[in-house]
Amino acid sequence: MQEHITIERLDLKEAQPDPAGQMYELIQKLYPICRSLTGNGVRDTLKILQKHIPLTIHEVPTNTPVFDWTVPKEWNIRDAYIKSSNGEKIVDFNKCNLHVLNYSLPIQKKVSLDELKRHIFTLPEHPDWIPYRTSYYTENWGFCLSHNQLSALADGEYEVCIDASLQNGHLTYGEYFLKGQTEDEVLISTHICHPSLANDNLSGIALAAFLSKHLSTLALKYSYRFLFVPGTIGSITWLCQSESNVGKIKHGLVLACLGDPGKVTYKRSRRGDAEIDRAVIQVLRQSGDPYEILEFSPYGYDERQFCSPGFNLPMGCLMRTPHGCFPEYHTSADNLEFISPQSLADSFSKCLSIFNLIETNAAYVNLNPKCEPQLGKRGLYRAIGGQTDAKAGELAILWVLNFSDGNFSLLDIAERSDVGYDKLKSAADLLTEHALLRPHRPVIAK
Amino acid sequence: MQEHITIERLDLKEAQPDPAGQMYELIQKLYPICRSLTGNGVRDTLKILQKHIPLTIHEVPTNTPVFDWTVPKEWNIRDAYIKSSNGEKIVDFNKCNLHVLNYSLPIQKKVSLDELKRHIFTLPEHPDWIPYRTSYYTENWGFCLSHNQLSALADGEYEVCIDASLQNGHLTYGEYFLKGQTEDEVLISTHICHPSLANDNLSGIALAAFLSKHLSTLALKYSYRFLFVPGTIGSITWLCQSESNVGKIKHGLVLACLGDPGKVTYKRSRRGDAEIDRAVIQVLRQSGDPYEILEFSPYGYDERQFCSPGFNLPMGCLMRTPHGCFPEYHTSADNLEFISPQSLADSFSKCLSIFNLIETNAAYVNLNPKCEPQLGKRGLYRAIGGQTDAKAGELAILWVLNFSDGNFSLLDIAERSDVGYDKLKSAADLLTEHALLRPHRPVIAK
Amino acid sequence: MQEHITIERLDLKEAQPDPAGQMYELIQKLYPICRSLTGNGVRDTLKILQKHIPLTIHEVPTNTPVFDWTVPKEWNIRDAYIKSSNGEKIVDFNKCNLHVLNYSLPIQKKVSLDELKRHIFTLPEHPDWIPYRTSYYTENWGFCLSHNQLSALADGEYEVCIDASLQNGHLTYGEYFLKGQTEDEVLISTHICHPSLANDNLSGIALAAFLSKHLSTLALKYSYRFLFVPGTIGSITWLCQSESNVGKIKHGLVLACLGDPGKVTYKRSRRGDAEIDRAVIQVLRQSGDPYEILEFSPYGYDERQFCSPGFNLPMGCLMRTPHGCFPEYHTSADNLEFISPQSLADSFSKCLSIFNLIETNAAYVNLNPKCEPQLGKRGLYRAIGGQTDAKAGELAILWVLNFSDGNFSLLDIAERSDVGYDKLKSAADLLTEHALLRPHRPVIAK
Repeated sequence: MQEHITIERLDLKEAQPDPAGQMYELIQKLYPICRSLTGNGVRDTLKILQKHIPLTIHEVPTNTPVFDWTVPKEWNIRDAYIKSSNGEKIVDFNKCNLHVLNYSLPIQKKVSLDELKRHIFTLPEHPDWIPYRTSYYTENWGFCLSHNQLSALADGEYEVCIDASLQNGHLTYGEYFLKGQTEDEVLISTHICHPSLANDNLSGIALAAFLSKHLSTLALKYSYRFLFVPGTIGSITWLCQSESNVGKIKHGLVLACLGDPGKVTYKRSRRGDAEIDRAVIQVLRQSGDPYEILEFSPYGYDERQFCSPGFNLPMGCLMRTPHGCFPEYHTSADNLEFISPQSLADSFSKCLSIFNLIETNAAYVNLNPKCEPQLGKRGLYRAIGGQTDAKAGELAILWVLNFSDGNFSLLDIAERSDVGYDKLKSAADLLTEHALLRPHRPVIAK
Repeated sequence: MQEHITIERLDLKEAQPDPAGQMYELIQKLYPICRSLTGNGVRDTLKILQKHIPLTIHEVPTNTPVFDWTVPKEWNIRDAYIKSSNGEKIVDFNKCNLHVLNYSLPIQKKVSLDELKRHIFTLPEHPDWIPYRTSYYTENWGFCLSHNQLSALADGEYEVCIDASLQNGHLTYGEYFLKGQTEDEVLISTHICHPSLANDNLSGIALAAFLSKHLSTLALKYSYRFLFVPGTIGSITWLCQSESNVGKIKHGLVLACLGDPGKVTYKRSRRGDAEIDRAVIQVLRQSGDPYEILEFSPYGYDERQFCSPGFNLPMGCLMRTPHGCFPEYHTSADNLEFISPQSLADSFSKCLSIFNLIETNAAYVNLNPKCEPQLGKRGLYRAIGGQTDAKAGELAILWVLNFSDGNFSLLDIAERSDVGYDKLKSAADLLTEHALLRPHRPVIAK
Repeated sequence: MQEHITIERLDLKEAQPDPAGQMYELIQKLYPICRSLTGNGVRDTLKILQKHIPLTIHEVPTNTPVFDWTVPKEWNIRDAYIKSSNGEKIVDFNKCNLHVLNYSLPIQKKVSLDELKRHIFTLPEHPDWIPYRTSYYTENWGFCLSHNQLSALADGEYEVCIDASLQNGHLTYGEYFLKGQTEDEVLISTHICHPSLANDNLSGIALAAFLSKHLSTLALKYSYRFLFVPGTIGSITWLCQSESNVGKIKHGLVLACLGDPGKVTYKRSRRGDAEIDRAVIQVLRQSGDPYEILEFSPYGYDERQFCSPGFNLPMGCLMRTPHGCFPEYHTSADNLEFISPQSLADSFSKCLSIFNLIETNAAYVNLNPKCEPQLGKRGLYRAIGGQTDAKAGELAILWVLNFSDGNFSLLDIAERSDVGYDKLKSAADLLTEHALLRPHRPVIAK
């Protein structure tokens, strides 16, 4: 039977020129940039993305009220170092932008080792790694060093210089809207506020960029909106400015940490059983790869904002190893070696399968609901009966026929059967072609 | 307390002359007959059943439309063989009716080994066994051989003869209706279309025959309808002809493969938690024997038709080892040695327990709902208190009293407690006798 | 953040002079008294309790009808013994009041060993222990002996004397009502009908007495009613006399067997998921100690009456090792050594945690429901970001904010999160203080 199946659906998975390599290259290019909540690092990042996708860049002025928050001052940094008393730069921002406490005030002065130490952050448990630390909402200055660097500091006077500015300016974010056949939206959001961190930040950026690029070539049922926003304040700003439109969002994903070698992890939306939750779980279950499902909790990435009780959007968070669960998290070890094109490609492929599922999921009506239709006379059944093994394609046909009473979507049937979603969709197409099935309008997704 | 319990209920389990032996004898008698979807094999089978039960035999003409299907031509076979070039019958239908591809076209001609082989089916993994194969809806001819027979065929010319006819005629099925106190029906269906296969086909036929014979001697709440139908087309035909009456069916079972040594398996109805599903599961749970519960799937026996979305009847399928799960399935090894009177007796007894449960299940109302009634003054409680072990009979009384608020049937209580259904029913009878309980009308089964 | 939390709630757990020692002393004092369903043993017990709490003592006349029952005759005993033919008291009520079958008729006569044996109860499996047996509703006389005592009885004549009376009188029970801010009641009931049994009876009495004493010093939302009643007939009598008021009971616990070394066991109410069920389970889960949850069954202590279908009160039963599950149950080995101040203290503490939870549980409304509020500017967030571990206090704040949409109580949130109830309550208080939250009226407990 399989050979009769005509694939009618949007083929979201049709191969493009290897996106894995392109994603990895993009990450390599973005890696050295010192991003932060605001500032030129974000602007530079978005401009590079514009070479791939026609991103709209939004600039929101400092002090703009956004719900309970206000847009912060813009931070920019040009240089930073610590010099020992003999003039040697022992810590240099140009070598690693993690060295500076993100959002540090500008400073240039001589300090004793004691005073300096009060402004230094290290990771004693990983003495070679430099931690990533921020001070967005408390004015402070500081340096992040490897613990070995700290240990090597001799008594004496040091010159500290942070050539940064914290002034009125703008918060910058990027948005890419793909118009589909309907106004219903799928919202994909990723954060762009971390400096040289590859998995946490750049993997999501690259994935979102190339997913949107790929979708832009297809006819889609849903409209898709991709957000490249600084964490927390960026999604809050977007939600505040887009509040009148959020009702259109039917499904969504926050993308983060998708380049590491770990298994895919999905954190459910606050609703817990939204269609996006069920779609992701179905795709992961069918993949045959290991995966993990986490319950919603109000701690994590920007799903904290999208799933706040006043919005409660159907958005979960797709990751590989979750934040805080890999030792390299928020350290200099989250670097280009920590991620791989293979992991990026696997994340890309699974995202497309998820989009494919939500694009095509529908309930159908069996037009011959009393007893099974005679499949044989339509060439939909094997000729010689009595054999033990029913073919998988026949099973898919039988499942679709039996549960297509308008109350079960293909996703419902996939959850209930062991037949994969794609096989069920092919069966539904085939049965529709043979006038045994018609789509049920409106779609009832359980 | 137990000794006070008066058993008022219909005793469906009261012994008859050993039905196990009678069932096995019936199977022995039916075994040699070459049944098929239609034809004299079915008629002969039903006529033998008429010696036990007053079966109505229906004849439905070829080409009668039944939903999406039409009644097929009637197939009859008189003889078939393969002769080697020296005139020796090397394959003989009279030795085993599985040798002929069921619904083969008539043929008599000489063929080369090569051509012959294109019409031969074997089981290489069980070289001594003959497979059972059919070609109901594709015109073809063929022979089923043991793989050893095939391997022994020398090059040369063979004479093949299938003295069969495929002509307009009738589809034949049997029906036995037992009128109960209400019009609500229990439908029991079994297939009668397989030739010499003992477990798959004959075990269900014998069981249904002797169950109906036993029920015919009892006063029953429900009406019972037993169907002896060819698989698929038979149940479709019956459903088409009985469509106006199917609303009366409150419970049902498809019986198949009930003579083998395996544990009892129950496949739930499409509804999944119909009262019949819960009744069967309760009986199996209480039996103490191993058992297995399968979720509904639209592949199997005639529950495919009864549970099609246009009917969605509350009917599951009771089996021992399911179709396709024993190697002997659809082979000559599904023979009289494969089944046993003991397994048939166990299946018989469990079916009666299921009928007993659905016949007697009811919700009751505690007439003394505020605090426990004083059981002691009614002789319903042990005299010396303070002992550790409450008697099982007392527990049954306490469960029935506590949950008889009209919302819980005895089956509900059995599911919730560890007290068996029969003990609860006895307790309910005893409490009713003592005016502490009355049946709740209408019965609310959760 | 933790240091900012102002504890506003009723502190039910504030220490009193060591109640464990006081509970144990009370049990020591009550232990020798021969309690029964009725009589002076119960009165003496309640009078001793009156030294601790202002208990109201109720006297209900014999033959008063109470639902299906009548108040029994009052039983009092002054002395009892068995003398051997040489005049030696070989069994003496004054040494152990378990020796007499509780509710024995008075008797004084000489009997043969054979006749005597028909009135003797022993525990062959524990030959040193004396069993506890009753004959409340069947007139009888008898003695309970250790099996060794029985074995030592030589042939001959014995004098048996039970100087008891079974006459019209009263059933006696104690009640202590603590008026709270609302008329809604929490009902705590414990049985007082067992003679020298320490765990089964005295542990519950001492715990209820000291819990009520402690609660009497606090401002409480609920009114609390403590019942000290003989088992079964006592709770039936109270329910009958208080029927018009039982609608006020919002939560309740039967206390029994709370002094033994076993883990805490909670048997759910008939409702199964009443708030009291969920509160107890939450407290036990958070305690970190082993515990066990039992489903409701209509066998046990006075929850049988409180949860009879005509009342169906939200009352479970809190125990350590359940009745019948420790070998000492209903024997002389359930003595002062079997229980400990430590176990009593642990039971006391867990009960207070349960009361604290039901006193304070409420749903709240997030006053800033769109995105998270900015905690940092209110001093509710750590200053240096980017660290791996979110503080538990912050997590509690985030959970309360995210789920405070009026649909989730703090108990709901505690069940869903791994954050303990107390932390969530502190977070809710802190957020209320910062005008980020307000209580939702009316409280919606899921």
